[in-house]
Amino acid sequence: MSSDVRGYVRELAERAREAQRAIAALEPQERRQLIEGMAAQLRQQGAAVLAANAGDMARAREAGLAPAQLDRLMLDAARLESMAVALEEVAAQPDPLGEVTRRDRRPNGIVIERQRVPLGLIAMIYEARPNVTADAAALCVKAGNAVVLRGGSEARASNAAIAACLHAALREHGLPEAAVSLVADASREHVLELLQLTGLVDLAIPRGGEGLIRFVAEHARVPVIKHYKGVCHLYVDAAADPVKALDLLVDGKASRPGVCNALETLLVHRDIVPVFMPLALEVLANRGVEVRGCARTRTWGDAVRPAEEADYAAEFLDLILAVRVVDSLAEALAHIQRYGSDHTEVIATEDAAASDAFIAGTRSSAVMVNASSRFNDGGQLGLGAEIGISTTRLHAYGPMGAESLTIERFVVRGDGQVRHPESMAG
Amino acid sequence: MSSDVRGYVRELAERAREAQRAIAALEPQERRQLIEGMAAQLRQQGAAVLAANAGDMARAREAGLAPAQLDRLMLDAARLESMAVALEEVAAQPDPLGEVTRRDRRPNGIVIERQRVPLGLIAMIYEARPNVTADAAALCVKAGNAVVLRGGSEARASNAAIAACLHAALREHGLPEAAVSLVADASREHVLELLQLTGLVDLAIPRGGEGLIRFVAEHARVPVIKHYKGVCHLYVDAAADPVKALDLLVDGKASRPGVCNALETLLVHRDIVPVFMPLALEVLANRGVEVRGCARTRTWGDAVRPAEEADYAAEFLDLILAVRVVDSLAEALAHIQRYGSDHTEVIATEDAAASDAFIAGTRSSAVMVNASSRFNDGGQLGLGAEIGISTTRLHAYGPMGAESLTIERFVVRGDGQVRHPESMAG
Repeated sequence: MSSDVRGYVRELAERAREAQRAIAALEPQERRQLIEGMAAQLRQQGAAVLAANAGDMARAREAGLAPAQLDRLMLDAARLESMAVALEEVAAQPDPLGEVTRRDRRPNGIVIERQRVPLGLIAMIYEARPNVTADAAALCVKAGNAVVLRGGSEARASNAAIAACLHAALREHGLPEAAVSLVADASREHVLELLQLTGLVDLAIPRGGEGLIRFVAEHARVPVIKHYKGVCHLYVDAAADPVKALDLLVDGKASRPGVCNALETLLVHRDIVPVFMPLALEVLANRGVEVRGCARTRTWGDAVRPAEEADYAAEFLDLILAVRVVDSLAEALAHIQRYGSDHTEVIATEDAAASDAFIAGTRSSAVMVNASSRFNDGGQLGLGAEIGISTTRLHAYGPMGAESLTIERFVVRGDGQVRHPESMAG
Repeated sequence: MSSDVRGYVRELAERAREAQRAIAALEPQERRQLIEGMAAQLRQQGAAVLAANAGDMARAREAGLAPAQLDRLMLDAARLESMAVALEEVAAQPDPLGEVTRRDRRPNGIVIERQRVPLGLIAMIYEARPNVTADAAALCVKAGNAVVLRGGSEARASNAAIAACLHAALREHGLPEAAVSLVADASREHVLELLQLTGLVDLAIPRGGEGLIRFVAEHARVPVIKHYKGVCHLYVDAAADPVKALDLLVDGKASRPGVCNALETLLVHRDIVPVFMPLALEVLANRGVEVRGCARTRTWGDAVRPAEEADYAAEFLDLILAVRVVDSLAEALAHIQRYGSDHTEVIATEDAAASDAFIAGTRSSAVMVNASSRFNDGGQLGLGAEIGISTTRLHAYGPMGAESLTIERFVVRGDGQVRHPESMAG
């Protein structure tokens, strides 16, 4: 690695870390106003952001990006307004800092408090989705952190224009721009260097495809919270209400198949198969969903293709669904344990014992009882917004909002207490 | 790496992970009885444990281990009893699992719960301290986890004898021994392999000297919670009560200098120097503490050696103290920010504004106001016991008890709710 890159990235991180103290020192109301100011700047400088994005889009089309990638990169007036509204929603959330989460008085009279403090400096590494630039900056600042943003190179001009809005708001409030730092050159070399900065970067959050996340996980020396793929299951229990189960199936599979909380596999208890399977296959066909099923599933529809082993481990992110008939709840749990990705599992059942067993038998970040997998989302679960969905069972598990960007420390108040008073020679 | 080592370690971890489900499925009362059973077995098989330890000690003396290392390795009847009592204390703690920490009802009627679940499989990597074998196993099991233990090779026979006690208790309760797995061969190769097992090992906790912790941090692909050195500060404010400050100084520096929460640096506000410094230097001399001071400190005592830059960054773990006079609280905070290790900081002051500024201006895992640094300990802070003290600002910060070996996940209960009800074609 060139020493130029190393020096540039390190200096960026050092300045961001220095700036973090100014953000952490703000009153809750000031942090709120700062983020509202960011939203206002996005609206005010909207034409410049859209012009920059148009340039990115033209280059991306020339480079032959896939339609899904182009769609994620594209901004228009409506999407820009959504970005601004999202920032206002983050601003309006309760302040996560300073809150005393527990207080305990020990027999020796010392009072122990747990207090929420910022993580420090967060490195956000993502692909060509300009809205992440604004969302991540707002969530980090809300929790008193600084952030170094490294977005995909295809969105470089859009990200620079959005960062200019965020910086304008920081300046308006007399705060250092470095609190929200954008890595200007989006090469892999820059990412690598960022991931080595132990003692400066407190947390790296990769967000994007599996390739990016594996790259970050393999090379990081700083702590990483990962979000791997979502192979989400719907298990339709013997005691399911078939109508509810059909709704959960359609919403989970067909409402937005390209996202991580969409369903990828349907497991059906054999006792409910005669009632449920014909309806399910009909509804799926109507929605244009290709079904890949086990032998027992295939007896219910000619259009069902045989499922291969790999289909049960696949995150299709498309209108494709793997289906399997199981003999018991235990068999469903064993299937999920074998093929699942710890993301989201759903049970449709009216039997409380079955839902209890399902909750106890799964280890995923979210378990849904008679509710859609699509609710595993920060906004839907009441976090206001999310910086990602963690499938790492450490620090945060599931959607991460502003509170997940803080940590609890110990504050102890005494009146001169010591641990070995017997040895104090008065 | 040989494929033998790879296969052995992977199989050990796979069996431990399988066994974890049996531990997690226990009722709180059963986990409590299991850990009490471990304590009973330690007492019952005490002679065997002590005999194994005597063998380790003989080999360690021959190998020329330092006195401090020998002291950590050594077991006697009293220490064995302390180990058993520590397990009983862990057993008696409130069960950390299943607790619903928050409950929220969304406008669409879904009820969102946060529920504490085990982390899964923990890899504990430590040095030749046999008590860690029992402590770590009990804490992991208390939180529904399985553990793979890899202790220092000098304690191999002691660890095997202690593991035999733990296994006997597991068998008595009809549980798989693999829930507490000991890596038989303690080579670095085995540690390396353990640290690569992403998807099997949920967390690695290194405990020991800085060398071990850096080795683990550098090579781990699994998540790691680190505990680096403790360079703990006592700041004696202008508004300090000198008598309390002296007690904090003696307890912090002299009661047990070899531990991470002992004081390493004393910072004294210039206004209190004439009152405090002569007393402090006298008390430190009486306790046999060598003082390395700044120029202003040295004017108060002929025995004070000049402090070098490195002394302020040093974790002496010995009867040595760095001392510096500062002009203000801000200067004390700047010193701590520059030289500190995020472990424990103490302020002695009767001025609430000063203690508030000190709390806000430090980012360490524990901040003490008029209380000894030695209280930064799981037992002292009410956690019952600790598996380590985290200086990583992620997941846990400060002493980690059983609750730190759990994670909160989302449980959502609905009545058929979907995210896009408008698209449900009835």
